[in-house]
Amino acid sequence: MDIPAAPHVLPDTCDFTVFGGTGDLALRKLLPALYHRDLEGQLPGDYRILGVSMSDLDADGWRDQVRAALRTHVDPTDLYDGAIDRFLGRLHHLRLDAQNPEDWDRLHALLKDRPNPEAAVRVFYLAVAPRLFGAICQRLDEIGVVDEHARVVLEKPIGHDLASAREVNDAVGRVFEESRIFRIDHYLGKESVQNLLVTRFANTFLEPLWSSHWVDHVQITVSETVGVGGRGAYYDHAGALRDMVQNHLLQLLCLVAMEPPTYVGRETVRDEKLKVLQALKPMTPTDVDHDTVRGRYAAGLVDGEPVPSYSDDLGHSGSRTETFVALKTEVQNWRWAGVPFYLRTGKRMDRRVSEIVVVFKQPPHSMFPGAEGATPPNRLHILVQPDEGMRLHLTAKEPGPGGYRLRPVSLDLRYAAAFDVRLPDAYERLLMDVIRGNPTLFMRRDEVEAAWTWTEPILQRWASSPDRPKRYAAGTDGPTAAATLLERDGRTWQEPDQ
Amino acid sequence: MDIPAAPHVLPDTCDFTVFGGTGDLALRKLLPALYHRDLEGQLPGDYRILGVSMSDLDADGWRDQVRAALRTHVDPTDLYDGAIDRFLGRLHHLRLDAQNPEDWDRLHALLKDRPNPEAAVRVFYLAVAPRLFGAICQRLDEIGVVDEHARVVLEKPIGHDLASAREVNDAVGRVFEESRIFRIDHYLGKESVQNLLVTRFANTFLEPLWSSHWVDHVQITVSETVGVGGRGAYYDHAGALRDMVQNHLLQLLCLVAMEPPTYVGRETVRDEKLKVLQALKPMTPTDVDHDTVRGRYAAGLVDGEPVPSYSDDLGHSGSRTETFVALKTEVQNWRWAGVPFYLRTGKRMDRRVSEIVVVFKQPPHSMFPGAEGATPPNRLHILVQPDEGMRLHLTAKEPGPGGYRLRPVSLDLRYAAAFDVRLPDAYERLLMDVIRGNPTLFMRRDEVEAAWTWTEPILQRWASSPDRPKRYAAGTDGPTAAATLLERDGRTWQEPDQ
Repeated sequence: MDIPAAPHVLPDTCDFTVFGGTGDLALRKLLPALYHRDLEGQLPGDYRILGVSMSDLDADGWRDQVRAALRTHVDPTDLYDGAIDRFLGRLHHLRLDAQNPEDWDRLHALLKDRPNPEAAVRVFYLAVAPRLFGAICQRLDEIGVVDEHARVVLEKPIGHDLASAREVNDAVGRVFEESRIFRIDHYLGKESVQNLLVTRFANTFLEPLWSSHWVDHVQITVSETVGVGGRGAYYDHAGALRDMVQNHLLQLLCLVAMEPPTYVGRETVRDEKLKVLQALKPMTPTDVDHDTVRGRYAAGLVDGEPVPSYSDDLGHSGSRTETFVALKTEVQNWRWAGVPFYLRTGKRMDRRVSEIVVVFKQPPHSMFPGAEGATPPNRLHILVQPDEGMRLHLTAKEPGPGGYRLRPVSLDLRYAAAFDVRLPDAYERLLMDVIRGNPTLFMRRDEVEAAWTWTEPILQRWASSPDRPKRYAAGTDGPTAAATLLERDGRTWQEPDQ
Repeated sequence: MDIPAAPHVLPDTCDFTVFGGTGDLALRKLLPALYHRDLEGQLPGDYRILGVSMSDLDADGWRDQVRAALRTHVDPTDLYDGAIDRFLGRLHHLRLDAQNPEDWDRLHALLKDRPNPEAAVRVFYLAVAPRLFGAICQRLDEIGVVDEHARVVLEKPIGHDLASAREVNDAVGRVFEESRIFRIDHYLGKESVQNLLVTRFANTFLEPLWSSHWVDHVQITVSETVGVGGRGAYYDHAGALRDMVQNHLLQLLCLVAMEPPTYVGRETVRDEKLKVLQALKPMTPTDVDHDTVRGRYAAGLVDGEPVPSYSDDLGHSGSRTETFVALKTEVQNWRWAGVPFYLRTGKRMDRRVSEIVVVFKQPPHSMFPGAEGATPPNRLHILVQPDEGMRLHLTAKEPGPGGYRLRPVSLDLRYAAAFDVRLPDAYERLLMDVIRGNPTLFMRRDEVEAAWTWTEPILQRWASSPDRPKRYAAGTDGPTAAATLLERDGRTWQEPDQ
């Protein structure tokens, strides 16, 4: 009983061009994802992958890089020599110096040098520094490879504030129509995030509970155990709010809070997400002081190993950048008014996890003698990573004669176990959506700008405040102020197996 | 974080008298249950168990019987020689011919022959033919052993129609106050039935869904694979409606449908159950013809073995008794109006199971392109036996890139696994409740009589109708008319792992 897929069709053929083809993202994520889709026979016939980089490599040189990357990043049980060779045969490499017009001409020639080049869907994946987005698009336009089949994929960050985001969007928008700009947020490609839509809207049991009437509050946590490592120079200009909250966490919030769309289609989901972003309570300077917490990791222990402080990672101690944010916001609409949404994210935390916890109110009345307040409230845990799944925390009766002893229990669904299939990486889905031309899971310009509109007052207040991020030891759950943020409301952060 | 039990206290001591002490129920259920409670140290100090029967046994003779019964009916891992000997030391036997006043005097003497007999809680468990209930109670009263600590336990059936039930209740009620009459329905002692109250009322997530607004219909199935065996003579005067529907199935229905009581206490739950029984749509003769199905098993195969027909089990073919009932009813109140409750029970069915299935409505709107009607509706399965537990059937997204492929999944809770404890038998709980004086889980007189009031028009119509029960082959799911009963409403009986 297979259900027809969304009406986005696979093109007959495709040229997939990766700017930054020798970079970490390309080798670790994009090429392994394309390999997997090739392995399952889902890529168009006669497709090509063009790696563009500053590296002085020929096609074979890049293929060797990619072969090594596949061996590192693909599960060995999915590696077949024949499949690898076939896949590598699709690869081409172009050394491109953006200042050199002849290099651009070579790109033009390469893209035209195929049967029926007018019919090929051209994907340009910009896995490069965001400041280059506008210029690359302009050159692509100038060399005449942007036609109605062309699509561009942008990695975050789109700008570092509202004005710069608009600049990027304007520059890219001068060349590509909005419907052909794919702003990627790989969180949206995760199975559990996808399934959130299905869980909410293909079932009866959740939606009646999904409002201020029954929900006490929502928590969204994205924590990492890694530090900034070699990315310190970039990261120190961004910080956790720009790097994680403005995109990933707000996107997860949107999927939790959005109204049911008329159907799950090209613009409908994005329309509903936009409405959530527009409904976020604007942060006044007083709100920022009261409802946000910044932190920065000091030295500590992660998994029993000593790790350096952020300043040591950075090489100097003058930074005011946060590596941790916790904040409280509210979706000001009919459904959610009065329900706090608590968001937190940080580096060098005690565990690597992305999860959404919807905490329901306690039953309105306790009718089991002596059992009042004895068990935690019902919660729906949506586990985004590392183990994608869902867990419904309930109260049950402990077996045994006599009185009612109430105990917490949970009903579990782990995707990998439930379906007994390999869960595709988020990039596999998202790259296929780009090739198929389905933008549902990508951020539209107005979403990105609405997210910046909400985020900017926080950045501004922080910049003007004499306070600095609060210290937290690496390997902990962040500064104590993050716990206080909830405790003053009589709540606590949910730990995974409570 | 133990929660105090309900305020029913264990007495200091107790004499537990079983009329029918050498019978099947006593040996198979009651004595093993008491052994388990003794093993866990939950019986009062200095308690005694008196077996009363027509058998010419001394105490040791009965102990040998009981020892053999424990070895047969108790899990070997719970059998300890010391514990068995200690338990058997509590046992006494009295041969009693009900017509012989001297035997009753001996019972009196035995009950008084203990330290401080006034303080002992006396339980009289009548595991005998219901026609003896009144007479036994009267004699107990006459010999002066019914004081304010005395309790009587009645096994079903309480009457075979409303008038005879009233007779029994009157006769017993002349001796025992209603609060000291324990009409046992062992279904109510099952952990999963107990947990139904907790699931509904100690959680937030179910009650908002628990009404005609979200529930499409409810199914209650109690099926057995056994035939009537040696009980044919008794059974042929009862039939499935009297034997199962009037008590077990209606009780399960009450627990599903009842309003939340103010607290779970002595009378509150029974008050709410009574309201459900009183709200059952009365059956007119036309309703009976339209909404009930009677069946009787023919020869067939159960678990691959040929089994005889009901007539063969009975030894003659003149009977019109049903061994299967399916029916549709409705709870006519604000919460449930318009929601069908389908009940079915039968002997010689294809599986042994007791379960309640609450089938929710489909989501009001299908928003996943092409996925309409593709998955079954959400359902909550409450498994009463053999594997007590709960299963929530949902729709999830099948992992993989591309469109939304919707698939049914289930979130499971099996008590035995979740709590990793032995699940006590229903009788263990119920006997402890009797000893503690907690009647919550026992049927009150008004409940029994309300159930008969609703049942009687069905019996009357069947008796006056020329139709006979429909034939079904043993080892099947009953007559096809039972399937038609739902199919004409566009529904189907839920099989366990759908």
